[in-house]
Amino acid sequence: MIAKTPVPPYYAVIFTSVRTNGDNGYAEMADKMVELAKKQPGFLGVESAREQIGITVSYWKDLESIRKWRENPEHQIARRKGKEDWYRQFTTRIAKVEHNYNFENE
Amino acid sequence: MIAKTPVPPYYAVIFTSVRTNGDNGYAEMADKMVELAKKQPGFLGVESAREQIGITVSYWKDLESIRKWRENPEHQIARRKGKEDWYRQFTTRIAKVEHNYNFENE
Repeated sequence: MIAKTPVPPYYAVIFTSVRTNGDNGYAEMADKMVELAKKQPGFLGVESAREQIGITVSYWKDLESIRKWRENPEHQIARRKGKEDWYRQFTTRIAKVEHNYNFENE
Repeated sequence: MIAKTPVPPYYAVIFTSVRTNGDNGYAEMADKMVELAKKQPGFLGVESAREQIGITVSYWKDLESIRKWRENPEHQIARRKGKEDWYRQFTTRIAKVEHNYNFENE
């Protein structure tokens, strides 16, 4: 669902990817990484959808939280597997969220 | 596909949404808005995927380009229809992309 994030500024990691064919353990690891990310200091939320491309946006308190998550040993194993087996192509963008508008239909 | 964006800094508009039921002219307007966005000054690319939620990330040269796109008359009509008919809920985040890493499997 749509992440409930605090008042900006905070950070977004926009991860856009094209998968290889077949699951090869991807779905299980993806779920595990979301659960692990949620436990990290500074994690604020995550949003994800996949059609021809996958887009996962995770939200973080600051750059330091993102750096620590990138260095998490279990996450590093998943990142290596990602390059070897799961992704044909990906782009990771680190962005500082400056403004945030919510709309909800009554 | 994955947007080919320039060396940062540039801006991202992260639009995360939950749709109402039925199409109601949505798909046609969505395609039209992507075509129109591509013609705007400062437009750098767009990425989109929908499952339970939809995520569309558009990339822009600067905040001024984003402001002008928001004020585009045809876009304003689409935005109004979005609130009235197409979206149950959405969040728009404006973020400054500071870093950008690409990976492509050989």
